Amino acid sequence: RSGEMAKLTQLIDNEVFRAYATYTTVVLLKMMLMSLLTAYFRFSRKAFANPEDTTFLGKGDNAKKYQRTDGDVERVRRGHLNDLENIVPFLGIGLLYALSGPDLSTALLHFRIFAGARILHTFAYMIPLPQPSRGLSWGVGYLVTISMAYKVLRTSLYL
Amino acid sequence: RSGEMAKLTQLIDNEVFRAYATYTTVVLLKMMLMSLLTAYFRFSRKAFANPEDTTFLGKGDNAKKYQRTDGDVERVRRGHLNDLENIVPFLGIGLLYALSGPDLSTALLHFRIFAGARILHTFAYMIPLPQPSRGLSWGVGYLVTISMAYKVLRTSLYL
Amino acid sequence: RSGEMAKLTQLIDNEVFRAYATYTTVVLLKMMLMSLLTAYFRFSRKAFANPEDTTFLGKGDNAKKYQRTDGDVERVRRGHLNDLENIVPFLGIGLLYALSGPDLSTALLHFRIFAGARILHTFAYMIPLPQPSRGLSWGVGYLVTISMAYKVLRTSLYL
Repeated sequence: RSGEMAKLTQLIDNEVFRAYATYTTVVLLKMMLMSLLTAYFRFSRKAFANPEDTTFLGKGDNAKKYQRTDGDVERVRRGHLNDLENIVPFLGIGLLYALSGPDLSTALLHFRIFAGARILHTFAYMIPLPQPSRGLSWGVGYLVTISMAYKVLRTSLYL
Repeated sequence: RSGEMAKLTQLIDNEVFRAYATYTTVVLLKMMLMSLLTAYFRFSRKAFANPEDTTFLGKGDNAKKYQRTDGDVERVRRGHLNDLENIVPFLGIGLLYALSGPDLSTALLHFRIFAGARILHTFAYMIPLPQPSRGLSWGVGYLVTISMAYKVLRTSLYL
Repeated sequence: RSGEMAKLTQLIDNEVFRAYATYTTVVLLKMMLMSLLTAYFRFSRKAFANPEDTTFLGKGDNAKKYQRTDGDVERVRRGHLNDLENIVPFLGIGLLYALSGPDLSTALLHFRIFAGARILHTFAYMIPLPQPSRGLSWGVGYLVTISMAYKVLRTSLYL
């Protein structure tokens, strides 16, 4: 059994795979931060989605009025959904890319630009910065993912 | 080629990886159940999102009135989205964690608590149970994922 | 180090894994297309979610009126979310299935039907085709994923 574990450990010892592991964990943690940000705005704006979430604010009609939408909460939720739409492709295509044998420096370039673009996207969405800041940071992450997908298909196409 | 297949099979023979495979499949199947639950509420409440979904209920204005939102349908959809937001990080970080060489017992503890917390979260959201049931079950799954992310970064940090 | 890389490359050399890599990349790229489609409808229908997105259309109240929802935009967004809800389980369960040692022909059958069903689902949702086109294409992809999950649990169940 220790022989098998050694083989698994070799995967995580590979530098490209370690870089993938690091940057994927970073962008997934960043995405998870959006949940805390949503909670923060729900409590500070007193805007909740469910009646059972408002009972700590009082009883009956007094609490009911806090079951409502709020502009800031909805903005964070759109940012969170945009993360899902873009980080899920990175998670899947990035894993296959890391296993397709890219140069370490090329792989690092892809991972670093993607992570940087998604962090910038969050600041552009939350502050918010004037457009096209958000649009450009989204586009850069999108193109990095397309570039990795191209490498995966060129290496392993099997239809 | 049978030699290669043997190596792949070794991955799925590793106990930590088998545990990851099992619990990931379980939480993804649980998430998929939300689609069936949404369909059930859409049909029983007659509340559909698209005009083409209502034609079986009649023609013209008679069918049109069923293109509407419903409280129970929206609740299931929020639960489904919350699953996506939390199970996607588990999918990615959990895979990297399983490959980072954790003790079998520690890994099982992480996977079992996460799966249990997400199943509890669904019951808390759908029944619904009074808060903080849903909040706590969400938080437990969140902390388990953070703990796995810490192990991944400690083992394989490569920036 | 080249020894380790060789082992990684063996994974991507395995035919079942190459097929998984190909079809996963295809369905993730298809999902990413929904972002471009959303942008297209937002610009052609002049319907934006954020005030900072409308400033290129003029100043003050003139631009403000374009921060609104639009039927076509919302339809694409529902299609995009449906992709997330169904392609995330395929991403995770499909990877574990590819590592569980299925026959190449059986695996190809699963991957091809899933990818075909999701592409059909998008056409059924966007055109839109009369029901039950969309419902059936959704159901076929769902059942393929269940079938793969069954194989994963049969091969690697470890609770």
